[in-house]
Amino acid sequence: MVESVHQVNAAVMDAAGTLLHRWGDIEKPVYLRSAIKPIQALPFVESGAADACNATDREISLACASHTGEDIHVDAVTAWLDRLGLGIEDLECGAHWPSYRPAERALAARGEQPTAAHNNCSGKHTGFLATARHLGEPLQGYIHLDHPVQQRIVRVLEDFTGLDLSRAPIGIDGCSIPTLGVPLDRAALAIARFADPSALGAERAAACHRIQQAIACEPMMIAGSDRLCTALNGSARGAVIAKVGAEGVYLAALPKLGLGISMKTVDGTTRGCEAALGAVLETLGVMTDEMHTAMDGFTRPVLKNWNGFEVGQIEAHLDAAQPEG
Amino acid sequence: MVESVHQVNAAVMDAAGTLLHRWGDIEKPVYLRSAIKPIQALPFVESGAADACNATDREISLACASHTGEDIHVDAVTAWLDRLGLGIEDLECGAHWPSYRPAERALAARGEQPTAAHNNCSGKHTGFLATARHLGEPLQGYIHLDHPVQQRIVRVLEDFTGLDLSRAPIGIDGCSIPTLGVPLDRAALAIARFADPSALGAERAAACHRIQQAIACEPMMIAGSDRLCTALNGSARGAVIAKVGAEGVYLAALPKLGLGISMKTVDGTTRGCEAALGAVLETLGVMTDEMHTAMDGFTRPVLKNWNGFEVGQIEAHLDAAQPEG
Repeated sequence: MVESVHQVNAAVMDAAGTLLHRWGDIEKPVYLRSAIKPIQALPFVESGAADACNATDREISLACASHTGEDIHVDAVTAWLDRLGLGIEDLECGAHWPSYRPAERALAARGEQPTAAHNNCSGKHTGFLATARHLGEPLQGYIHLDHPVQQRIVRVLEDFTGLDLSRAPIGIDGCSIPTLGVPLDRAALAIARFADPSALGAERAAACHRIQQAIACEPMMIAGSDRLCTALNGSARGAVIAKVGAEGVYLAALPKLGLGISMKTVDGTTRGCEAALGAVLETLGVMTDEMHTAMDGFTRPVLKNWNGFEVGQIEAHLDAAQPEG
Repeated sequence: MVESVHQVNAAVMDAAGTLLHRWGDIEKPVYLRSAIKPIQALPFVESGAADACNATDREISLACASHTGEDIHVDAVTAWLDRLGLGIEDLECGAHWPSYRPAERALAARGEQPTAAHNNCSGKHTGFLATARHLGEPLQGYIHLDHPVQQRIVRVLEDFTGLDLSRAPIGIDGCSIPTLGVPLDRAALAIARFADPSALGAERAAACHRIQQAIACEPMMIAGSDRLCTALNGSARGAVIAKVGAEGVYLAALPKLGLGISMKTVDGTTRGCEAALGAVLETLGVMTDEMHTAMDGFTRPVLKNWNGFEVGQIEAHLDAAQPEG
């Protein structure tokens, strides 16, 4: 018996704007949330801020991360801030307990409270601070839409989506920065251009490749333990660069094929888009044995209860009846 | 902008089987999960087991609970087992960390691990054990469908739904007991009969009223901190007896009106059915100021991010175009 059903809208596009596949509504604006972080990190690299602070792959991956708040993430953010001459108090993302529950329990067992460094977006915010500092901009208020840090990101998003975003829907993300509503077809185009930036000029292409490499080489930093983003970016060996966002959003760049995938679970659940992403990657022929081993627990999981009994599974079904673009 | 959408199927019925309202598909079987616990607790009361162990309202509420694993729950289960001459090792529900995260952190801070008493279903399982012991049945294996404890529950469910459940879909719940697939219209009938048991005979009616009273008087025991079931059962002062289940199921008995409400979020999310339940209760005219104060944070919440900024809200819309039964 099928107990619950998720509908996932998705688009697959190349960097020239050819729509290869579509499932469901891909014209309605979707808040891209954290799924767009690899593109949000571009100004950090392109401005020279990454070079100025000798950013490592770990730090660039962390600048694209929704991390689990484990010690490796918090230590890396803290050390990076320290190198910038900044502190946790400069982060404007708010504090929350680590999402990885063993990390939360370890923190509690040490009698500590979470700080803004534990916020899943603390790496991105450190990248924002590094960019503002490098460019001599005010640090305070870097989360607001009218700050140069956010304005640069809007312009990059306009470049990649080809849209005038001045009248796009604007929400506030969990970490307090603006998140813009972009239709899935344009989101797929944006992440396809990130995958294949050959038409974007040498400097931008180099920045895209540097971010791709950082995520592929440091998959633990972009998410953490027990997370599909880490399993996928680690096992795909650069063939897929993928990032989840809140409310069931996923964006994936396929550099070798020059393709971008965008998807959103209509009901906002992550398990829906995780299963769908596995199915779409399978359809596109990019799944390897190594990827299956790493990813199947997320993309086609067998569900077990508290006694370890198998009680069900999650399966994705691509609706073949949908028109392909 | 509407970011995510949940579809909730729901039925409202009286104890005579008159369908008062319906939204969406109410004929397809739904695993009732923990939402059916108040009815699953009937054999514990009807068999005399509750009297034999001098069960308090707290314990009867706990027998219907999906609790948060806070100290009050764990202490109550442990003391109850002790009075039965049993121990945590007799519980067959498996162990998991408390769902209420401050309780999880407190446990971790004490350097302890969770036991089966922390399992959200430990109260129900203690009720099962008390029943089996009272009736001289084997204790071991009480979670399996062929054990008298589960067979009695199936017969009670057949009485309340009016269905032959011998060929109903059977799943295994998180706590390892069987969960049966029942269409929402019959689930609404079952919980309406629990709300108004006047036609079920004096003994069964008394058992239903005793369970209703226990839940209304001890709302913390049926769920816990930061949970709609506790807010609703506490603020409704007996006018609504409601219980959530996994995968977006809710059942609510309205004893004063003699009505039953059943609902299931198609995608399985709890936030969907919580919002819908508030809207249906509003439609039925049972919401009081006290209930709004207690419940609105769950049924029509304003969403805040980690900095406390208001970033959105959840709203339920009853589709007036749906045919009413």
